[in-house]
Amino acid sequence: MDLAADFRLKNLGKYQEYYHSKHEHPELLEKAVYGLPELHREELRNAKLVAVPGCMATASILGLAPLVKTGMVDEKNIVIDTKIGSSGAGAGPSLGSHHPEREGGVRPYKIVGHRHTPEIEQELGRLTGGNVKVAFTPHAVGMVRGILATIHAFTRAPVEKKNVWKVYRGEYGNEPFIRMVSDNKGLFGLPNPKNVVGTNLCDIGFETDPHVNRLLVLSAIDNLTKGAAGAAVQCYNIMAGLDERTGLDTIGLHP
Amino acid sequence: MDLAADFRLKNLGKYQEYYHSKHEHPELLEKAVYGLPELHREELRNAKLVAVPGCMATASILGLAPLVKTGMVDEKNIVIDTKIGSSGAGAGPSLGSHHPEREGGVRPYKIVGHRHTPEIEQELGRLTGGNVKVAFTPHAVGMVRGILATIHAFTRAPVEKKNVWKVYRGEYGNEPFIRMVSDNKGLFGLPNPKNVVGTNLCDIGFETDPHVNRLLVLSAIDNLTKGAAGAAVQCYNIMAGLDERTGLDTIGLHP
Amino acid sequence: MDLAADFRLKNLGKYQEYYHSKHEHPELLEKAVYGLPELHREELRNAKLVAVPGCMATASILGLAPLVKTGMVDEKNIVIDTKIGSSGAGAGPSLGSHHPEREGGVRPYKIVGHRHTPEIEQELGRLTGGNVKVAFTPHAVGMVRGILATIHAFTRAPVEKKNVWKVYRGEYGNEPFIRMVSDNKGLFGLPNPKNVVGTNLCDIGFETDPHVNRLLVLSAIDNLTKGAAGAAVQCYNIMAGLDERTGLDTIGLHP
Amino acid sequence: MDLAADFRLKNLGKYQEYYHSKHEHPELLEKAVYGLPELHREELRNAKLVAVPGCMATASILGLAPLVKTGMVDEKNIVIDTKIGSSGAGAGPSLGSHHPEREGGVRPYKIVGHRHTPEIEQELGRLTGGNVKVAFTPHAVGMVRGILATIHAFTRAPVEKKNVWKVYRGEYGNEPFIRMVSDNKGLFGLPNPKNVVGTNLCDIGFETDPHVNRLLVLSAIDNLTKGAAGAAVQCYNIMAGLDERTGLDTIGLHP
Repeated sequence: MDLAADFRLKNLGKYQEYYHSKHEHPELLEKAVYGLPELHREELRNAKLVAVPGCMATASILGLAPLVKTGMVDEKNIVIDTKIGSSGAGAGPSLGSHHPEREGGVRPYKIVGHRHTPEIEQELGRLTGGNVKVAFTPHAVGMVRGILATIHAFTRAPVEKKNVWKVYRGEYGNEPFIRMVSDNKGLFGLPNPKNVVGTNLCDIGFETDPHVNRLLVLSAIDNLTKGAAGAAVQCYNIMAGLDERTGLDTIGLHP
Repeated sequence: MDLAADFRLKNLGKYQEYYHSKHEHPELLEKAVYGLPELHREELRNAKLVAVPGCMATASILGLAPLVKTGMVDEKNIVIDTKIGSSGAGAGPSLGSHHPEREGGVRPYKIVGHRHTPEIEQELGRLTGGNVKVAFTPHAVGMVRGILATIHAFTRAPVEKKNVWKVYRGEYGNEPFIRMVSDNKGLFGLPNPKNVVGTNLCDIGFETDPHVNRLLVLSAIDNLTKGAAGAAVQCYNIMAGLDERTGLDTIGLHP
Repeated sequence: MDLAADFRLKNLGKYQEYYHSKHEHPELLEKAVYGLPELHREELRNAKLVAVPGCMATASILGLAPLVKTGMVDEKNIVIDTKIGSSGAGAGPSLGSHHPEREGGVRPYKIVGHRHTPEIEQELGRLTGGNVKVAFTPHAVGMVRGILATIHAFTRAPVEKKNVWKVYRGEYGNEPFIRMVSDNKGLFGLPNPKNVVGTNLCDIGFETDPHVNRLLVLSAIDNLTKGAAGAAVQCYNIMAGLDERTGLDTIGLHP
Repeated sequence: MDLAADFRLKNLGKYQEYYHSKHEHPELLEKAVYGLPELHREELRNAKLVAVPGCMATASILGLAPLVKTGMVDEKNIVIDTKIGSSGAGAGPSLGSHHPEREGGVRPYKIVGHRHTPEIEQELGRLTGGNVKVAFTPHAVGMVRGILATIHAFTRAPVEKKNVWKVYRGEYGNEPFIRMVSDNKGLFGLPNPKNVVGTNLCDIGFETDPHVNRLLVLSAIDNLTKGAAGAAVQCYNIMAGLDERTGLDTIGLHP
């Protein structure tokens, strides 16, 4: 189980392009299983090496997978705009998460070429057999825990909401940690990382925007659970033949 | 000088579509000047009725105007993802800005069909003579003051950074309240609303992303100054023949 | 089980003085048990009416009870300075917890005569048989959950830390929800409400200050668990003959 | 002009006791003027060496000076409980101001023996000719700028509010940067550091508490202006014979 980034990418060239370093064990890249149970549950059962995904990649891939898999959205025109809390930068102090600098602002960073980009493209590409390209940009905000991925995808023709629902239900109907939140009413009718803090849930919601043939998807996780340690536990549970939810039945906190 | 929204749109149909109400004085729509000095300075000198723009519209239009005007970006494929502080919702308490609900989250709201959309399209459309369409989605974040507009625009062919610089300099070289911030280094190398709090500045930065032919633009303002009262003062100064900066030479606060 | 304030005070005169209203059922005051298991566990087993304490009263009383009971501190010279998160003001929006006003400040409120004062004095007075008086002042801070009570108590003569430890251990050694935190090192060596968020714990720490014969006590709880709903569950468990920790074994969140 | 702590204390022994280091220039201690214009304006006019006060000392001393000078409060029983924003810890990152650790908590630190204690006692002692002792404890809160000093002082007999007003007016009636805020109504009726952010003001308010013969004083400053750089400018203006307010007429920001 690797919570770092070394075995997330299958393509050695991409690794070198995005990580700017030589890989110590390229021979293991193919053996590693990308630790997203929603996409790789079967492979995880017999995995020897699991690469836990990047936290922003998890939110992004889970939001998009059903739409890309079914060809519902244009896979060459996807914008992913993420917002991440300060715990995403790690436990060690840094200027970027120094309280006086972090609080009260929204700071875009690594605005092009972020390392979670090739992961997202790799995993979504697997689903289509084709080439997926995403325009990805993260923002550091003043919350502590959580990620919101705002995914601006586009459809070739107008789509009906009920058909989008059907696609998500078909893929995720039995997923223990995916919760569809899309009634778009009140404070809790759309995904907000605040609503999943402390849980291993990924909240996903969407809306159609006929004005520009957009299918807007929102995907929220707690970066420290579903985005890191919780994902590792979920993968381990599968590898060990346990109930996938073991140790992950926390109810979170609100507010 | 109207700080509300009634005279921002020239098109009565758009007003009714987005505001769901009958306009009391449709005859004044054409006479009103859209109060963005960077685009309407000459008209403002003799204006009788000024419609101060929506705060998120200001950040969005200022970031995009030079690119749209010169045809540098595809005006049919523009994604604007904004993040706004709690003071943007007004001085009166509401559930959306109730501290326990607001703090520690990122809440997307009015995710399609937001009322600032037609303003942005109107003003950018004026610059091209054509039809501009934007995919616009705002997010309520836990800061108090400020707006960041993250604008994902796309070019038909790869562009060089120096040419983008040239376009911005050409349009904004003499603007007193626009500051280009685009060295993309350190904490202050890109626009962040925290850096303009208390000022009437609009910080604009950009980056080219050859991976997807994207031209990413970041535009930051303080919603209470350049996004509201400061804009009104700036317009008034022009109308009154005063130095445009009168009363607006505040240096802001950091951190 | 009453989570409001009507049955916390035994003395009808005090109720009228602090709540400025006539009591509807004064005959029940004597029958109500003050729902602090650490002080009233036996009475709770057969209670018919339980008054769940005020959240700031809980933090204050738990911090002081062992010291007052043993006569270690001067019970006529106790200063309690509390800091409380915005969820303490309830789920409904108000100007005091309007995000733009709350965030980024420290606002003292009801600075003298706060209603939790007589509760604290009543419960501590019970322990000495005498009269206890506290100088109590709360502050609204920008966090969401949590209370810190900073208790400045004074001793008639210098005291040794190990003797203070002994007093707390004697009283609280078997308490399931009291955690002594007093090594005064690093970020976690003293009580901070952040460390108990989501739990039913009360963290208590102290330090002696020979400079002014002060015994400084710090007491931290989550106002929504140990300060409200968690306390009610704990009381109910006792009344129902269940393990007192039933439903309260949450581990909380950090950060 | 020294913004560090080396010349704040006149007493070499106190310096060594609180700073645990040998003083490099003890001969200069007597020549240094403590840079609080409200107490040392005349000396500042001819000062060669000015020691800018500690930020929490400034708030504390200004709140107490008139009361101690007139003997209104018991100078042996003063509790000062301060709350300070994260910018008070400096521009460099540290674990204590690491955003995930700082935000959402209240962390008491250096709870006894804090270095601002002897400064406060020295300056207040000068006013009485006697010995003043304070019980001082600071708390790190989640705001960025600002200090609130909550001062729990006690009177030997009940005092009337109007007499307290008279004392403050007598001392501070002509002070350009002291603002009495004490109507105790609404959000702005008492000092809150949020209300002075960006200014060089010290807001002071008080309330009498006959229940325990307490005279509660609240004193709020922005630690980066009146608590540091603004104080230095104010002192410099006096030394240079300029209007004391030169460069300090900022209006601050709210919210």
